[in-house]
Amino acid sequence: MRIPMQLNVLAKNDAAAATNRSRFADSKVVAINLMGSPGCGKTALLEATLDALAGELRIGVVTGDLATARDADRLRDRAVCVTQINTGQGCHLDADQVARGLADFPLDELDLVFVENVGNLICPATFDLGEAHKVVVFSTPEGQDKPAKHPSALLAADLVLLNKVDLLPYLDFDVAAFRSDVAGIRDDLDLLEVSATSRDGEPQLARWLEWLRGLVT
Amino acid sequence: MRIPMQLNVLAKNDAAAATNRSRFADSKVVAINLMGSPGCGKTALLEATLDALAGELRIGVVTGDLATARDADRLRDRAVCVTQINTGQGCHLDADQVARGLADFPLDELDLVFVENVGNLICPATFDLGEAHKVVVFSTPEGQDKPAKHPSALLAADLVLLNKVDLLPYLDFDVAAFRSDVAGIRDDLDLLEVSATSRDGEPQLARWLEWLRGLVT
Repeated sequence: MRIPMQLNVLAKNDAAAATNRSRFADSKVVAINLMGSPGCGKTALLEATLDALAGELRIGVVTGDLATARDADRLRDRAVCVTQINTGQGCHLDADQVARGLADFPLDELDLVFVENVGNLICPATFDLGEAHKVVVFSTPEGQDKPAKHPSALLAADLVLLNKVDLLPYLDFDVAAFRSDVAGIRDDLDLLEVSATSRDGEPQLARWLEWLRGLVT
Repeated sequence: MRIPMQLNVLAKNDAAAATNRSRFADSKVVAINLMGSPGCGKTALLEATLDALAGELRIGVVTGDLATARDADRLRDRAVCVTQINTGQGCHLDADQVARGLADFPLDELDLVFVENVGNLICPATFDLGEAHKVVVFSTPEGQDKPAKHPSALLAADLVLLNKVDLLPYLDFDVAAFRSDVAGIRDDLDLLEVSATSRDGEPQLARWLEWLRGLVT
């Protein structure tokens, strides 16, 4: 009984996602769905990204949380447009919520739209939002076992970031084991090690920016 | 249309939870549902707890993850009995899964059962498993804004732990602001600051153990 119900929810979501995808395509906007655990650093990554690409790419952000507008408040001055979605008890964004979040966006004047999903490594992987790419963010304090425990996130991903590598000296975290687990699920995925908050001297954060630039051109 | 579907799922879950609750009561077992983000340190907290209470309390653990038996492997030698549940793509444990996880447990010979939920700050708050108490674990690297963003977890909680306080010197984390946000949602909740991995000199970890002892006597 539960499977048909879920299929119905997913079919309705897929229809709304297709509409979003058409809107992005019509406006030549690249949309990126950013997924990861609560506190993995999605918003900090967007802060660093928006600061680095200011004046170069025109970027909008739709950001999801159960409650508060704290993420939107952090990003508002950095992006062309920002919408906060509050899901209440919802554990992921769905395509219809994103459509409503985009309602006031001047899509024709944007290059990129980030959708910062609700902090959750699980359900966001299942719900297509009409994005072109899914990026999964892990962070070092979560522990090296998180990719192996969350294969569905990796199976949906186009790129993986390991954030907070500045904390590695204080953690028991084996980067090689982490990489090996990721490769065991998806050996075709790029994995960049970054620190969104300590931005200087970050060659792999530069590679993240290059990846974004490559999507737009 | 979605609300009746969810109510149906929850009603079915509540029935299974009531059965679990009766079984725990019949065997005089206290069950604790441990919730928190992926990597907040639920398993490390159980390692420290089981080590500290070895020979004093008889403890079983049901632990949930989408994939792998890594948590059960870490806990197996420390507890009387351990069962790993793999939820596939499921973002929380439900009461029926817990019932099956308990199938081989000698409940009459246990004092405590921990149910380590799937790493997720959202949906586990909605699904009663038949536990006596819900404990919500946050960790300092997640950032101080997580309680405000996850009121439903706090509304369901009987105790809050802030884990990984050993990392505070390396983080931009305001403990007072964290406590203030928690109190803004629930001013009746105890909040203990602990470090599961650096166990020595941890007065508040001792208070956690005292809290557990108080439940059993």
